[in-house]
Amino acid sequence: MYYPIIRQCVEALKNLETWLDRAEQHAAAKGFDVGVLLTSRLAPDMKDFIYQIQSACDYTKGAAAWLSGQKPPRHEDSEQTIGEVRARIRKTVDFAESVKEAQYAGASERRVSLSWGHGKMIGGEDYLLQVVVQDVYFHVSMAYAILRHNGVDVGKMDFLGPINFVDP
Amino acid sequence: MYYPIIRQCVEALKNLETWLDRAEQHAAAKGFDVGVLLTSRLAPDMKDFIYQIQSACDYTKGAAAWLSGQKPPRHEDSEQTIGEVRARIRKTVDFAESVKEAQYAGASERRVSLSWGHGKMIGGEDYLLQVVVQDVYFHVSMAYAILRHNGVDVGKMDFLGPINFVDP
Repeated sequence: MYYPIIRQCVEALKNLETWLDRAEQHAAAKGFDVGVLLTSRLAPDMKDFIYQIQSACDYTKGAAAWLSGQKPPRHEDSEQTIGEVRARIRKTVDFAESVKEAQYAGASERRVSLSWGHGKMIGGEDYLLQVVVQDVYFHVSMAYAILRHNGVDVGKMDFLGPINFVDP
Repeated sequence: MYYPIIRQCVEALKNLETWLDRAEQHAAAKGFDVGVLLTSRLAPDMKDFIYQIQSACDYTKGAAAWLSGQKPPRHEDSEQTIGEVRARIRKTVDFAESVKEAQYAGASERRVSLSWGHGKMIGGEDYLLQVVVQDVYFHVSMAYAILRHNGVDVGKMDFLGPINFVDP
């Protein structure tokens, strides 16, 4: 299940690119700098839009790396412009998609340590389901909520992205 | 992967119960009716908190049912009080946890139709990853965002819930 789940996390990151288009269109239509949205928050003691993207990217990158036996490439958290945010997403997608299904063999026997894990470890499956999926969707959803709350024209289908419907 | 993923969706619903406690405490401390939070929204053309819970519950219930070859039990969308919201979560959790791992055998060969699927079907794996996981986390996250935006004391660890760390 490692490969299909991480592939779906990558799809969630790709969906963000559409939302960035909508954010730019909204800012242009209303005549304000799109940077205002990038530094918006849902609450004063909550992280801003850029952080939500960085974090969603890092959990996806970490999963693709640790569960395939690699050290994650280092991506500095220095994005300030929408172009830089797009580049962060793109390099994350490119890295995660470079990991092939066969490289996840043995992922369930791997153990991962987290910066916030107080020196403990977590097994591969628990890492995937309790950390990666939950964190990726948390941060992607908070990014969506910040845009939606600020009037950007994004909707549920933009959140879901492509769905493989088939004829009955 | 059907059983562990749906089990994690159920955990996400259980985490909501803690957030409801915090919502009640916040309303009591500030001296307002908690019902204000239950009908709050992030944007005027977005659904309210109660709807987000109903929807997260229904996608979890649907997954447990359809992927184990059952028709989902019908739960009316009639909740108005926090007690009724708790009961909706609880009956969803109870139903989903009644489905045992062995009942998901053959889930990947099943095809599911969605009320918003324009008469099309979707295969078991795509349903699980593109619809269930994404929809459950979308609605759970929007519920969280509504509370967080309104000052309720919930944080990231309340979103994640229990994590099975192990000693290194």
